Amino acid sequence: MTLPSSQSANAIRILAVDAVQQANSGHPGAPMGMADIAAVLWQNFHRHNPLNPDWSNRDRFVLSNGHGSMLQYALLHLSGYDVSIEDIKQFRQLHSKTPGHPEYGYTPGVETTTGPLGSGIANAVGMAIAEKTLAAQFNKPQFDIVDHFTYCFMGDGCLMEGISHEACSLAGTLGLGKLIAFWDDNGISIDGEVEGWFTDDTPARFESYGWQVIRDVDGHDMNAIAGAIEAAQSNTTQPTLICCKTVIGFGSPNKSGSHDCHGAPLGHDEIAAVREQLNWPHPAFEVPQEVYNEWNTQAKGQELEGAWQQKFAAYSKAHPELAKEYTRRVLEKALPANFAELADEYIAKCQADMQNIATRKASQNAITFFANQLPELMGGSADLAGSNLTLWPEAKGLQDAADGNYVFYGVREFGMSAIMNGIALHGGFIPFGATFLMFMEYARNAVRMAALMKAQSIFVYTHDSIGQGEDGPTHQPIEQIANLRMTPNMTAWRPCDETETAVAWRQALLKETGPSSLIFSRQGTKAMARDAQQVADIAKGGYVLVDSEQAAELILIATGSEVELAVNAAAELTAQGKQVRVVSMPSTNQFDSQDKAYRQSVLPAGTPKIAVEAAHRDFWFKYVGQDGDVLGMDTFGESAPGAVLLEHFGFTVANLVAKANALLAE
Amino acid sequence: MTLPSSQSANAIRILAVDAVQQANSGHPGAPMGMADIAAVLWQNFHRHNPLNPDWSNRDRFVLSNGHGSMLQYALLHLSGYDVSIEDIKQFRQLHSKTPGHPEYGYTPGVETTTGPLGSGIANAVGMAIAEKTLAAQFNKPQFDIVDHFTYCFMGDGCLMEGISHEACSLAGTLGLGKLIAFWDDNGISIDGEVEGWFTDDTPARFESYGWQVIRDVDGHDMNAIAGAIEAAQSNTTQPTLICCKTVIGFGSPNKSGSHDCHGAPLGHDEIAAVREQLNWPHPAFEVPQEVYNEWNTQAKGQELEGAWQQKFAAYSKAHPELAKEYTRRVLEKALPANFAELADEYIAKCQADMQNIATRKASQNAITFFANQLPELMGGSADLAGSNLTLWPEAKGLQDAADGNYVFYGVREFGMSAIMNGIALHGGFIPFGATFLMFMEYARNAVRMAALMKAQSIFVYTHDSIGQGEDGPTHQPIEQIANLRMTPNMTAWRPCDETETAVAWRQALLKETGPSSLIFSRQGTKAMARDAQQVADIAKGGYVLVDSEQAAELILIATGSEVELAVNAAAELTAQGKQVRVVSMPSTNQFDSQDKAYRQSVLPAGTPKIAVEAAHRDFWFKYVGQDGDVLGMDTFGESAPGAVLLEHFGFTVANLVAKANALLAE
Repeated sequence: MTLPSSQSANAIRILAVDAVQQANSGHPGAPMGMADIAAVLWQNFHRHNPLNPDWSNRDRFVLSNGHGSMLQYALLHLSGYDVSIEDIKQFRQLHSKTPGHPEYGYTPGVETTTGPLGSGIANAVGMAIAEKTLAAQFNKPQFDIVDHFTYCFMGDGCLMEGISHEACSLAGTLGLGKLIAFWDDNGISIDGEVEGWFTDDTPARFESYGWQVIRDVDGHDMNAIAGAIEAAQSNTTQPTLICCKTVIGFGSPNKSGSHDCHGAPLGHDEIAAVREQLNWPHPAFEVPQEVYNEWNTQAKGQELEGAWQQKFAAYSKAHPELAKEYTRRVLEKALPANFAELADEYIAKCQADMQNIATRKASQNAITFFANQLPELMGGSADLAGSNLTLWPEAKGLQDAADGNYVFYGVREFGMSAIMNGIALHGGFIPFGATFLMFMEYARNAVRMAALMKAQSIFVYTHDSIGQGEDGPTHQPIEQIANLRMTPNMTAWRPCDETETAVAWRQALLKETGPSSLIFSRQGTKAMARDAQQVADIAKGGYVLVDSEQAAELILIATGSEVELAVNAAAELTAQGKQVRVVSMPSTNQFDSQDKAYRQSVLPAGTPKIAVEAAHRDFWFKYVGQDGDVLGMDTFGESAPGAVLLEHFGFTVANLVAKANALLAE
Repeated sequence: MTLPSSQSANAIRILAVDAVQQANSGHPGAPMGMADIAAVLWQNFHRHNPLNPDWSNRDRFVLSNGHGSMLQYALLHLSGYDVSIEDIKQFRQLHSKTPGHPEYGYTPGVETTTGPLGSGIANAVGMAIAEKTLAAQFNKPQFDIVDHFTYCFMGDGCLMEGISHEACSLAGTLGLGKLIAFWDDNGISIDGEVEGWFTDDTPARFESYGWQVIRDVDGHDMNAIAGAIEAAQSNTTQPTLICCKTVIGFGSPNKSGSHDCHGAPLGHDEIAAVREQLNWPHPAFEVPQEVYNEWNTQAKGQELEGAWQQKFAAYSKAHPELAKEYTRRVLEKALPANFAELADEYIAKCQADMQNIATRKASQNAITFFANQLPELMGGSADLAGSNLTLWPEAKGLQDAADGNYVFYGVREFGMSAIMNGIALHGGFIPFGATFLMFMEYARNAVRMAALMKAQSIFVYTHDSIGQGEDGPTHQPIEQIANLRMTPNMTAWRPCDETETAVAWRQALLKETGPSSLIFSRQGTKAMARDAQQVADIAKGGYVLVDSEQAAELILIATGSEVELAVNAAAELTAQGKQVRVVSMPSTNQFDSQDKAYRQSVLPAGTPKIAVEAAHRDFWFKYVGQDGDVLGMDTFGESAPGAVLLEHFGFTVANLVAKANALLAE
């Protein structure tokens, strides 16, 4: 094996140093420290095609210590991706391909957005799960159509974060033999030498998870690095952690080994000293052609992908049905052609059945239906399958079946959610994962990252309000729904019955450009009557469920389990001679995306409005204004049977009718 | 040592089984499985006083697997706390002392609210940190005034959660020798036998953290349990994990060892079988007097506390200043008598100085000032001291000084926040801890738990908007501030300059009944002119900063770094002949708690309003109504210099003036 020249590693260092200096912002320390590891991995092992970053069987590379973004940009630039030296000069500038942290969708070759520490390794675990499962589903003798590694770089910060525990523990249990992680063991974090706050025996910790651990690798010895990677690749039953001793800021005579080089430009004088130390006489942003030649992976990448294309062509002849399905799921990322039609039939059937069931049960019915249409659905729950109702008859756990479609994530909400993002980004699957709505909070940043990355993760949240009852305020969401609704690019749904639940699921499956949150009740709900137009309008996020005979003098807006309450209150108010409209609003996000004419037709300006939802009331002023009212929550819940609590907190027909009459009397 | 009778352990089992059955809801499995461990710990080791649950030197007991709440209620009832058999019968009923999960403040003897898994062990780490530090600050030869253990029960769920990694790793680093945790190793979680999703070598994992681990203890062998606790107590330099093999639902002939007994009533038939198996012929909620006699700890508790009181009396003579300070900080939980006066002086000085600095820098100035008045302040940051600006000249890290006042938490936001809650609940300290506002999300549930428990944790969040700049959307909060504001009992502050920052800090220190979130800018802010009344009104959360000469025809409401923008836009509008008022609103929570007359005086109904904040716009409709407008965000940010981003997203005087003129023209 021909190892990289020292200058090819130094090219990374210099590009990082100069780009950070030019931006006057960024993190030179990690790229300088990990340059040798990166050079060996990318030049000698990493199988990818710079001319087609989307080649489905490429190795995945994740920089979990995402603040070291210049490392990744340098690698992409040098390897021949569409990341030019001009792009490098635009590091951290508006709308550049080289933002402060690697952002999925901004830069060819960036597989996931990183920066929030520990998030990347969990994404990588998800990618490795996807690869292993997809391989089990599609590979045939002589046709290893799916066969790639997932590499991940991690710093001390990633290892301190709890999410690394959740994700790496599960990776060990699942035996993800093609996951190879590198620990940048430089002994430095932002506050200084980590010995005051991070003294784990990390190798022993990862062995306790069932990983292969390769200890004491000199991260500046290319031979040692190459040997470690070979050992990692040869172990196909365990994920591998390669522990690399490195010097942060390697090459900086006065700042290496110190946190001074972690997150700030080195300064012109020190950069001059780096050039001297690394024997790099070239000006900023100039890389000698021989270094480019050594790095360029375009030809090799084309060759690798070409060989795979040939294999896939042969596979298509030998296994045409499988190849067609691989093409649909992985290459075209398309739902089956008959999806829309079948979904419509299913929704119509739900409406006809008029079942009074909890929406979590309605969700299970929807999962059962859709999972049978969609082998790409990869279900799961954070140890609440029986409460979230996420299992369906044909679900097969990955721990028992390599080609399964369900992950028993254990009590790991954050890990689950970030792993789902990794599965979604890998391709071939639409992941869903469930927990109680309250414990969305444990996973909160991964939920946001799905939205930021436009990843199609479907988050299933049950036990959605004080209506869940006896578990008490620790388990009763108040401010959580508003939080999901305010997350850009998140579509939150809180359906009121089985039909709305089916629509919510369909819309989540159709939304390829981002995540959805499906919010379900523990308690039963009443099926609502609707005509065909109303059923069709559910997808608009808000619609008139019950209208007044004459022009409405009051509009009640409700979601989820409170829709029945609004309908009953409207009936009483109607009996009192009032003209009351009920709007069901399962998704404010979806409603907000409708045109103004539709929104005005549902919620005309000037008509008094009351919103009803067993969640934080402040959210609803956007729809009811200061002249309207909200029957909602602004305190924590309590422990008691759900029906008792709903009454205790005023979610009664009598109270809503009283509020309505008070508002009408103003 | 006289070990508990088997019937005294069975009393726990039967109370749990009967209470869960009566409530038709709850978790019998864990109390039945851990009853023997609990009996040995509570009868033979746990030093506490049922007649004074607040005795400051009691051992702390935390049930991290809080769903097993009936275990704790049974222990409290049997030991002689003010938890009657009638209270037990009210398990999970509204306003009872026995809610579904242990709730701090509801039940004498409950030290912290648990239920969200892993949260309790992190609280316990905080309590052990508080104990160790308080001991170093107050103990003198022959006067070990502070000297107690912290015990914590954990289930598999706690160990799967990432927060257990963060908290236990730090506990090992800090050598918390008086922290003793028990792992209920029953091999069962909600989804069934954990071997499919949880295969960690947990003892090895904890050894990798530097804990003493006592392996393979039979959790139903009282001798073995007692021996393990003795070994744990005798190791004063390491926290100890006692690994107890138990049978979930021990005593249930048909459901023990299975997840069937985890989270549902056993049913009347099975309960009869339990009674037979455990040789417990007594009816539900009847405990024989001899069992009560064995359990009752009132006399022993009085004796323990009495001895401590005597010691404290002697200490007060030997070390009067220290005793006075202990009385103030721990027993009275009072700020120094001159606090208000000094704070007022400091605030007045800030106003006079008119420094144009980032509010994170203003926060550091406030910390420096207040920390010198308040030795109870226990600072910290999740590895961002130099960015959050949380260090002050006299700060001493706990890793270097046992009597220190600063925790280098490492990159552990969730662990930090839950540890802070434990420190606050222990008493003797007011903890603050910092991270970037975005990474509040990693800690989100601990932040909520502080609010739920009314714990005085002060959360410091810097880099509060797109104004932070180049780090990009992963680091730029959008929906986070609204989330904090909507958290019941949270007081969120986003001050606009040094004076408002000082007031926010003062109010957070004064708020003994819950947490505050102090939200600070990375970028510079402009000091605002104020008269004395305006300075006084900052504490009201919102006030008129600049008023119009005549009655306002438009009100601009702004917070934080956007106040300067509002003031400048108002100046331009005034120059155009408009009557414009600027309201600075550093805390909507605080403003909402003012009387209606004050709120109306600041924000009169009918006057058009525009809110300006570089955060999610939906929050503000509560204040501006549907007729007003919001200059805010509803997308993610971007990576670019902060000033570029603020302009890109429309936070310019020109844009705000245009919006104002558009609104006035309507």
